[in-house]
Amino acid sequence: MKYTTQMDAAKKGIVTDEMKIVAKKENMAEKDLLELIAEGKVVIPANKNHKSLNPEGVGEGLKTKINVNLGISQDCCNIEKELEKVKLAIEMKTDAIMDLSNYGKTELLRKDVIGMSTAMIGTVPMYDAIGFNNKQLKDLTVDDFFRVVEKHGQDGVDFVTIHAGLNRETARVIKENPRLTSIVSRGGSLLFAWMELNKEENPFYEHYDRLLDICEKYDITISLGDACRPGCIEDATDAVQIKELITLGELTKRAWKRNVQVMIEGPGHMALNEIKANMLLEKKLCHGAPFYVLGPLVTDVAPGYDHITAAIGGAIAASSGADFLCYVTPAEHLRLPSIEDMKEGIIAFRIAAHAGDIAKGIKGARNWDNAMSKARADLDWEAMFSLAIDSEKARKYRAESSPEHQDTCTMCGKMCSARTMKKILNNEELNI
Amino acid sequence: MKYTTQMDAAKKGIVTDEMKIVAKKENMAEKDLLELIAEGKVVIPANKNHKSLNPEGVGEGLKTKINVNLGISQDCCNIEKELEKVKLAIEMKTDAIMDLSNYGKTELLRKDVIGMSTAMIGTVPMYDAIGFNNKQLKDLTVDDFFRVVEKHGQDGVDFVTIHAGLNRETARVIKENPRLTSIVSRGGSLLFAWMELNKEENPFYEHYDRLLDICEKYDITISLGDACRPGCIEDATDAVQIKELITLGELTKRAWKRNVQVMIEGPGHMALNEIKANMLLEKKLCHGAPFYVLGPLVTDVAPGYDHITAAIGGAIAASSGADFLCYVTPAEHLRLPSIEDMKEGIIAFRIAAHAGDIAKGIKGARNWDNAMSKARADLDWEAMFSLAIDSEKARKYRAESSPEHQDTCTMCGKMCSARTMKKILNNEELNI
Repeated sequence: MKYTTQMDAAKKGIVTDEMKIVAKKENMAEKDLLELIAEGKVVIPANKNHKSLNPEGVGEGLKTKINVNLGISQDCCNIEKELEKVKLAIEMKTDAIMDLSNYGKTELLRKDVIGMSTAMIGTVPMYDAIGFNNKQLKDLTVDDFFRVVEKHGQDGVDFVTIHAGLNRETARVIKENPRLTSIVSRGGSLLFAWMELNKEENPFYEHYDRLLDICEKYDITISLGDACRPGCIEDATDAVQIKELITLGELTKRAWKRNVQVMIEGPGHMALNEIKANMLLEKKLCHGAPFYVLGPLVTDVAPGYDHITAAIGGAIAASSGADFLCYVTPAEHLRLPSIEDMKEGIIAFRIAAHAGDIAKGIKGARNWDNAMSKARADLDWEAMFSLAIDSEKARKYRAESSPEHQDTCTMCGKMCSARTMKKILNNEELNI
Repeated sequence: MKYTTQMDAAKKGIVTDEMKIVAKKENMAEKDLLELIAEGKVVIPANKNHKSLNPEGVGEGLKTKINVNLGISQDCCNIEKELEKVKLAIEMKTDAIMDLSNYGKTELLRKDVIGMSTAMIGTVPMYDAIGFNNKQLKDLTVDDFFRVVEKHGQDGVDFVTIHAGLNRETARVIKENPRLTSIVSRGGSLLFAWMELNKEENPFYEHYDRLLDICEKYDITISLGDACRPGCIEDATDAVQIKELITLGELTKRAWKRNVQVMIEGPGHMALNEIKANMLLEKKLCHGAPFYVLGPLVTDVAPGYDHITAAIGGAIAASSGADFLCYVTPAEHLRLPSIEDMKEGIIAFRIAAHAGDIAKGIKGARNWDNAMSKARADLDWEAMFSLAIDSEKARKYRAESSPEHQDTCTMCGKMCSARTMKKILNNEELNI
């Protein structure tokens, strides 16, 4: 192999097979893509051991990608059910799947997921650290933390969330300046607890080079986690969040020196008017590294509808520069999502990503909309169904409520504006 | 009576009962509200014959309001079902209901709706013109158009949509510069057809003063309809749309001279990055009149999910100055909405309006969110349920998936970040 990672290849001017595929998908010149990867502005998360991967790029100028979370937990540990979710998520065109399993036979599930997935796979090794090492949180050693990352790398994980930015200094600020919801990152809270219980520095921060060794070896993309992301709109854009982001920017540069690919994770919960500034801050403080955001949720009051509160924020984030959206389902804040919840979340986030792509001027993004609009003006129902983001639901809705005039729908019947305009502009008899 | 309309009263310095109620609801000084009404920046749609009304204000500095559409059509003419929708819509805290009935016994339904509704009621008299006058569209006379408006006024309608801005000149531009989806406004397309068939000017434009006479008499607020609103993102912010908006601005000033209250209706379908500019344009071209928008839908490809595409646009619109959002349901573009569709639409738009209110800094808007966030940090599930925008759904979701540790949920179980942080910051035993 003449290169270690995609970034190393890009810096050496080598166009990898993965770059060729991504350039084609993005309708982009290979040399332009290569330059963006060399600069760290685009990543192709592609672990050398993930053989079934159909690679995707994430970053500047590329289509906004979406991620689906799944995995087993102590309360819901049905492996078959999670594998069913994987299949459906891929059918529904998700670009990435994070296996967030934190209990039981995580290795079995992870290997199955990676083996069957054409989508890139991410994990949070911290979730698995307790189970994998079979120890209490407090008793984990520094070696234990890295052992689990190494294992995930061997298994073929394409990107790992690592909360390396939560150092002792940031932990001190969190304690001295209480927030409404403190730390809401699961991995972040576990690391914080470990640091408090052991009076130690965050091992991923202190021994960051060990992490880079592993990531370079397998070409794992580091997704630098935001342990201090706001858990409510009130805590958004506060000093702790931005302080951690500055640290993530420093860690990004260190990774790039080792040719390790990096994404940055972002909020969270945030008032609508703060989103654009947050996208700018990430791009500046993290030197153009791709931004991977969760939501953001633009209000805290709608459990049961957080796919909507988050799609609003996600669309605005994508239009303002976010590159990768982690989906949120209606089950957020309430329970582990069901298959139906997952489906609702994927559609909401495909909408958000696409709306963002239209707004940020991704080439050809509007073609889909324009084809639909032409079908609408023509009252061509079959074309509308086949173009719909969820053909099945669109068909079902119309079938359940049948109009007298077959060219119209039961909303307006013969008062249909498309029908009226079509007839009047073609000098046909109107009969209203 | 010492005044004709709320605007007339405001100009005379009279604080009406309606103003007192609205000022209290908005947590605003009566004199500030009075000034905004006198300037036309706020309206209180309150027909003198709508006795059951609990008035709301719409406009600058006030909470964003939402409207629910319902009504019977040729294909769906079950009056009982529509009355059931009215009840539920009011329970679900809609601020306004538009009865868009266009077939059959519209008068009976309208009177029932007005009689039972504490929410303001709007109609589009054009939809009712054919049925009320019992004529074919082509045969309607100028008197017929105004007769139906007068009737709606007598019945107690608080605001009427009138597409007075679609004049012959604008119709010519539409014909000579074809759009992807031409005119998609139902009332606009009917008026366009009438104008084409009769080679006449739009009666509401040509005889606008007759309209003002009727509106002044009952204190009906005119909602100046945007016949040329874009029906797809490709047609948005085009010359025809903006040309009509300029005309609406002229008509606004004429109404204000007669002390008739005015709102302006707006798009429609629109790429996310165009929304803010459109809000500015309306406020400038229409001299600060309240803006009432439908959506806007930020992509055309998601029939079955247009409550989401429209909530994204609606939230951005509200945050950028829109005052009043017309809801969109999952049934949009497919059928007349069911009760379930209506419910989904209302929640999506209450979310959009509230997210907008937080962003535009409406006093106290965040209190609701902060109470929820505190309940989350405390793991106080009962408080979370009672604060949720839809308590029933939140409860149901949690009840369907029960965690081992009752303070957590099945998403994270004992790995719950709120639980971890609470225990570690209180020096309680963690046991993970």
